[in-house]
Amino acid sequence: MNNFTFFNPTRIHFGKGQIAKIKEEIPANAKVMLTYGGGSIKKNGVYDQVMDALQGYEVVEFNGIEPNPHYETLVKAIALAKKESVTYILAVGGGSVIDGSKFIAAGSVYDGDSWDIIQTSGACVEAAIPLGCVLTLPATGSEMNCGSVVTKASTKDKLSFKSAHVHPVFSILDPQTTYTLPKRQIANGAVDSFVHTVEQYITYPVNAKVPDRLAESLLLTILEDGPVALEDPTNYDARANLMWVSTMALNGTLKTGVPTDWATHMIGHELTGLYNLDHAQTLAIVIPAVWKFKKQQKREKLLQYAERVFALHQGSEEERIDLAIQKTEEFFVLMGNPTRLSAYGLGEKDIPAVQEKLILHGLVKLGEHGDITPKEAGEILKLAL
Amino acid sequence: MNNFTFFNPTRIHFGKGQIAKIKEEIPANAKVMLTYGGGSIKKNGVYDQVMDALQGYEVVEFNGIEPNPHYETLVKAIALAKKESVTYILAVGGGSVIDGSKFIAAGSVYDGDSWDIIQTSGACVEAAIPLGCVLTLPATGSEMNCGSVVTKASTKDKLSFKSAHVHPVFSILDPQTTYTLPKRQIANGAVDSFVHTVEQYITYPVNAKVPDRLAESLLLTILEDGPVALEDPTNYDARANLMWVSTMALNGTLKTGVPTDWATHMIGHELTGLYNLDHAQTLAIVIPAVWKFKKQQKREKLLQYAERVFALHQGSEEERIDLAIQKTEEFFVLMGNPTRLSAYGLGEKDIPAVQEKLILHGLVKLGEHGDITPKEAGEILKLAL
Repeated sequence: MNNFTFFNPTRIHFGKGQIAKIKEEIPANAKVMLTYGGGSIKKNGVYDQVMDALQGYEVVEFNGIEPNPHYETLVKAIALAKKESVTYILAVGGGSVIDGSKFIAAGSVYDGDSWDIIQTSGACVEAAIPLGCVLTLPATGSEMNCGSVVTKASTKDKLSFKSAHVHPVFSILDPQTTYTLPKRQIANGAVDSFVHTVEQYITYPVNAKVPDRLAESLLLTILEDGPVALEDPTNYDARANLMWVSTMALNGTLKTGVPTDWATHMIGHELTGLYNLDHAQTLAIVIPAVWKFKKQQKREKLLQYAERVFALHQGSEEERIDLAIQKTEEFFVLMGNPTRLSAYGLGEKDIPAVQEKLILHGLVKLGEHGDITPKEAGEILKLAL
Repeated sequence: MNNFTFFNPTRIHFGKGQIAKIKEEIPANAKVMLTYGGGSIKKNGVYDQVMDALQGYEVVEFNGIEPNPHYETLVKAIALAKKESVTYILAVGGGSVIDGSKFIAAGSVYDGDSWDIIQTSGACVEAAIPLGCVLTLPATGSEMNCGSVVTKASTKDKLSFKSAHVHPVFSILDPQTTYTLPKRQIANGAVDSFVHTVEQYITYPVNAKVPDRLAESLLLTILEDGPVALEDPTNYDARANLMWVSTMALNGTLKTGVPTDWATHMIGHELTGLYNLDHAQTLAIVIPAVWKFKKQQKREKLLQYAERVFALHQGSEEERIDLAIQKTEEFFVLMGNPTRLSAYGLGEKDIPAVQEKLILHGLVKLGEHGDITPKEAGEILKLAL
C-alpha cells in the first residue's frame, strides 16, 4: 500500500428535496452568481426549485455554459462576476457547468490573464469565490473534487487545472433531477464513472485492499444499474446509486494508497478537443486499447478485474483477460458508446494530430509507469481503429 | 436509498514517515498541548518522531489519558490548557487519547461546567481548540470523525458527544506505529472496526449499493488481514489495510443512505462502564445476540451478509443466517474475544444493572427501528449468557 494524503471538505446533501438546503449553505448577505448551461433546468423544474431556495438573495445569472466548457465563454462570466462584485457562485448542472464555474470562481479574483490558471495547472490560484453546486448529471465527479477541465475553442485545447481553492463548499445531489436527462447523457455519465474507477484500479497490485474492493463495488453497481437507469428513467434507486457512484469514483477515496493511470482521460481529452467527440465516447475508445497495449504490465489487476467484476474463473489467464476486456467493450456499446474510432468517422490519418496535441500539452509520460509517450499513444489508438 | 448529508473535513496523511507532516499542519506560532496515554509512545519511538516534528514549537505535555478516558482525568487537562493558553492540541495514541483530546479541545474554551458537554451530547459546544492526531492504534475511527466517548469513573457512566468543532483538522496514520502494539489491542481494534461496519450494514435493505458493498469490502479485509496482523506484526500491508479499514469504518462513508443500528455499542458501553470489560469484548458479546434476537427484522441483510461476506450459498435461509452468525462469533474468538458473558465472569444477575444504566442515560429506543428498549436489551443479553 502506497503513502497518500486524503482531504475532501465538500459537504454533500444527497436525496429528495435537498435543493432547499441551499439557503442553509449560502450566507444570507451573499451576492450569488447562478451559473448554468443550455437551459434544460428551466424545463425540468430544477431552476424553479433553485430560485425558490434563493429567495431573499441578490442573484446574477450567467447561462450558456456549453459541454466541454469554453474558455471564451467563461471569461465573459468572469467579467460579469467582477462587475457585479459577486461573493458566491452556485453552479447548477453537470460536470461542464461545475468545471466552468470552478474556473469562474478562481478567475474572478485573479489579477492576471485567467488563461494563466490553465497554463500553470492551477498553481497560480491563491483564492477563489466560494462555490456551491446542484448536480443534475452524474458523471464527472467534479461536484466533490478540486479539478476542472476547460477547452479553448479557438485552438482546440482541452486542458485541466486543480486547486484546493475551488473545492465546492457544498454540493446537492437529488437523483430526481436526472429523470429528464436524455438517455445519451445518462449512458455517457455511467461510462465516465466506470472509466474513472478503472483508471484508479487497473494498474499494478500494491495490496491496498480497501480502494481495490471499493473500485470493484462501484464497477459492479454501474454494470447493474446503468442499464436499469436507461430502461426505467424514474427508478429512483438506480439513479441514486449511479449518482453516488459517480461522486465516489472521483472524490479521492479510490486512489487512497494505489497507483493511477490517467492516460485514457488525457488521450481522450485530445480526441474531444480535436474532433468534438463526447467525452465518454473517447473513453470507450481509448481504455480497451490501453489495456490491450499494456496487457503484460496490467496483467495481475486485469485478472483480478476479470475474476471479481465479471466472475470469470474459467480458461487460461490470457482468455480471462481478453474476455474481461471484451465484456467491458460490450458494456460500453450497450450504453451507446462504440469502442472504435471508425464508428465516429475517424481513422489512422487522424492519429498524428492527437500525438501533436499531447506533445504541445506536455503530456509525454502518461500511465502508471510514465511510459506512455505520444508514440505509444499512437500505437494505442491504432488498436482502436 | 435514504437521504443523507456527508461532511468530513479531516485531512489524512497515511503511510511511512508521515509524522513529519505535523509541522506542515500546525501553525508555526501555535502553543501545542501534546496529549497521550500511558507512555508506550516513549518506548516505540513515536514520541521521539513527534517531538522531532514539533521542534521550534512551544509544547505542553499532558499524559496519562487512560483507556475509556476518564472525565476526572480530562478536567485536569482542561485546567492545564486554560492556564497555559494552549492554541493547538496534538493527540498521540488510540481512540481513547483522541476521544479524550476532543473533550479537552471543547472543554478548554467552554465557560460552564465541562460535564455539560456530555449531558447535552455536544449541543452546547460552540468552539474548540484545533485538534490534530497521530493515530497509533487502529480501532475506533475517532481520528476522522466528530464523536467522542468519555467515562465518568465516579459514577460508571460511559457516554458520548458529537460536535463538528472537534473534527480533527488532520490525522496522521503510519501503520508502522502499530508494530509494537500488544496482540490484544490489535485484535480488539479489528473487532471494533468489524462491529462499526456491521452496525451500519445489518439493518434492513434500502437498495443503497455503494455503502452496502463498501461494508462488505471492509469486512472481507478485516477477516483476511486481522489474523495476518496478529501472526506477523511487522507485515506492513496487513497493518496498513487494517488501519485504513478502521478509519473508513467510521468516517461517515458507510452510512451514506442507509439505516444504522448502534444498539450494540450503546449496550456495550454500559457493560464497560459497569464491569470494566474491554470495549471490543462487549461488542463481541452483544452483536451476535442482537442478530439472534432480531433475526426476522434483519433477515434480508443477514442473508446478504452470509452470501457476500462468508460465501454461504448452500442450505436453507435459516441455516445460512445461523452459520453466518456462528462464523462471526468464531472470528471474534479467533481474535481473542469470547462472545459470552460467562467468559468474563458475568451472568444473568448482572443484566438488571445494565438495564438501569440504559434508562438513566435515556437509551430506551435503540436499533434501526427504535424498538430495543431496556427490556429487549435484557432479552438480548440473556442470549449471550
